[in-house]
Amino acid sequence: MNMEPKFAGMEVGYDVPALPGMSADDIQTPCLILDLDALERNIRKMGDYAKAHNMRHRAHGKMHKSVDVLRLQQELGGAVGVCCQKVSEAEVFVRGGIKDVLVSNQVRDPAKIDRLALLPQRGARIIVCVDDLANVDELSRAAQKYGTTLECFIEIDCGAGRCGVTTTSAVVELANAIHAAPGLKFTGIQAYQGAMQHIDKYEDRKAKLDAAIAQVKDAVDALKAEGLDPELVSGGGTGSYYFESNSGVYNELQCGSYAFMDADYGRIRDKDGKRIDQGEWENALFILTSIMSHAKADKAICDAGLKAQSVDSGLPFIYGRDDVKYIKCSDEHGVIEDPSGVLKINEKLRLVPGHCDPTCNVHDWYVGVRNGKVETLWPVSARGKAY
Amino acid sequence: MNMEPKFAGMEVGYDVPALPGMSADDIQTPCLILDLDALERNIRKMGDYAKAHNMRHRAHGKMHKSVDVLRLQQELGGAVGVCCQKVSEAEVFVRGGIKDVLVSNQVRDPAKIDRLALLPQRGARIIVCVDDLANVDELSRAAQKYGTTLECFIEIDCGAGRCGVTTTSAVVELANAIHAAPGLKFTGIQAYQGAMQHIDKYEDRKAKLDAAIAQVKDAVDALKAEGLDPELVSGGGTGSYYFESNSGVYNELQCGSYAFMDADYGRIRDKDGKRIDQGEWENALFILTSIMSHAKADKAICDAGLKAQSVDSGLPFIYGRDDVKYIKCSDEHGVIEDPSGVLKINEKLRLVPGHCDPTCNVHDWYVGVRNGKVETLWPVSARGKAY
Repeated sequence: MNMEPKFAGMEVGYDVPALPGMSADDIQTPCLILDLDALERNIRKMGDYAKAHNMRHRAHGKMHKSVDVLRLQQELGGAVGVCCQKVSEAEVFVRGGIKDVLVSNQVRDPAKIDRLALLPQRGARIIVCVDDLANVDELSRAAQKYGTTLECFIEIDCGAGRCGVTTTSAVVELANAIHAAPGLKFTGIQAYQGAMQHIDKYEDRKAKLDAAIAQVKDAVDALKAEGLDPELVSGGGTGSYYFESNSGVYNELQCGSYAFMDADYGRIRDKDGKRIDQGEWENALFILTSIMSHAKADKAICDAGLKAQSVDSGLPFIYGRDDVKYIKCSDEHGVIEDPSGVLKINEKLRLVPGHCDPTCNVHDWYVGVRNGKVETLWPVSARGKAY
Repeated sequence: MNMEPKFAGMEVGYDVPALPGMSADDIQTPCLILDLDALERNIRKMGDYAKAHNMRHRAHGKMHKSVDVLRLQQELGGAVGVCCQKVSEAEVFVRGGIKDVLVSNQVRDPAKIDRLALLPQRGARIIVCVDDLANVDELSRAAQKYGTTLECFIEIDCGAGRCGVTTTSAVVELANAIHAAPGLKFTGIQAYQGAMQHIDKYEDRKAKLDAAIAQVKDAVDALKAEGLDPELVSGGGTGSYYFESNSGVYNELQCGSYAFMDADYGRIRDKDGKRIDQGEWENALFILTSIMSHAKADKAICDAGLKAQSVDSGLPFIYGRDDVKYIKCSDEHGVIEDPSGVLKINEKLRLVPGHCDPTCNVHDWYVGVRNGKVETLWPVSARGKAY
């Protein structure tokens, strides 16, 4: 009851869930915590893998939206830069000092194209994806206006069913147009098979990637025949990176979720049939939550609901506990089945969110924890940067 | 291509999707927009209803998390104050000048109890919910420590299955304890039947509310017999407020979603079988989105995905359009079925989100629009205030 000195001097309405140096027991919930040891191990492991396979790793910043995590991925994991999905995210990463930035998405709005074309003035290499001839002209005019160079990836839809062209002839047509356009540089291929990342079985994922790789190889071969050899062929996620790495076609990975992990990725299996969160990667990201009501003997209510996570990929699981289960999520509450009534008021639990990306986007802070202490507080730098 | 003067002078990484005075055509997407005319009509209508039925209306601020919207609810709709779910939200509303604040939830963490007990020093009436005897002592000690008064509602679980006691004897026991506790005041009853709000049929909702009202009446009668007549009996939502208003038991409403509406509430029916978003209330909240890829003839890709909304209650619908349909949502993309290929690159659409509360919580700004112009930009003041 005498804890106010821990946040002494902060104005009413302060917005930090913890302060560095605090015991982890004093963190205000719900909030995101990072197990820094686990995070660093994941980052080093992916870095070692990429290096051993002679792949560049462009870490996906859309997942964590954090300049601090990206810097760690560069420093410990040898990441070459970042990819992100929005111009507003790219601005945050460039402002944060990241020098090699891919917007792995289409940019069509005139004001956004202007913002994008201005970014190279800040000393960063800027790459953007294209899937439409009209966009080549739009980007070229903006780059000329600001005297900058925008590098372009042609996006191939290799199975995700969203943006991207589907034929080799369309790829070649776009590459020629980019090559001829002042202010633009044809740099490579974006080919991320997003739809297969979460398929449980390794063999099923492999079948999807085999098809994607064949499609990309066909396009690359055609480009080489045109004299437009792509410098970079980029793609791959946490559920597929070993396929791209051994393809002989790709030379850049774009993994994101491996660093934090989540419940949905955790469910997929490695080639030995083992869940990937039980060996390949560690859970480093958790929603810390507290029990705040236990008025019914077999149900405990915790303080992490829909405003502390996204449930698009299912409910969270409670880390390290088989005796209690998160069964229902409303705006500010989670209902936890507690058949033996073991949970106590104010007891803290670690939830592994169903889907890390949109869950991180709800929070303002990462609380970095090591050895039971709060070591650091990192802003979710590009949180809400959707436009 | 010459739009940069519209955001002239803003640093790279600026975080507003629009500026007041702009044409609505120049809003950067995706973002939340409010149709100010519709919003004001909804607010006045609920205010008139509450007044005609002699009910207090404590508008639920957890939905919009906006001091500006709450002020409008007070000014145009006669709202008496706010209810919210978190101490951090209450802090924002108190800092914003709101004088009557209910935390319609349990507060058990010692540091949060301290923060709550400090708030009356800022000139606001603070009410909090209780469902456990141990909490009475915790709250009392904190109020005494700071020389403040915390008012208490006893929370009855009248069907929502979350927090709250379920028996009249438990209500009476808690009321006596609160009444006897220094620093606390027994003010009333919190009885919100959250689980029935979204049941489609009016008659089915009525049956649930009849049971809830009977349960609450039993508790109120028992309290009166003890000489502990509750000053306020509070509850009711957008799917039920007419039941509470005509109950003779409740005297305070807590509606939130009526002001903005959403797809999930829109699906429920009034007593004539009509969707409530087709007469009772108007859609005032939209996610403005743009088409950013149309590489496949029958599928358009828009820029509003999971980071622009919550899909816990289903996908959004496209307002005013029957010819195109939002069919799939990934992190940054929405897939729109466009069988006739009518959508153009950069065309803007208004999405009605599945669930307004957690969707608002993803965004930093409301862009208020009237007559095709951006009239105002309101911060989502308590966004991310979950702890």
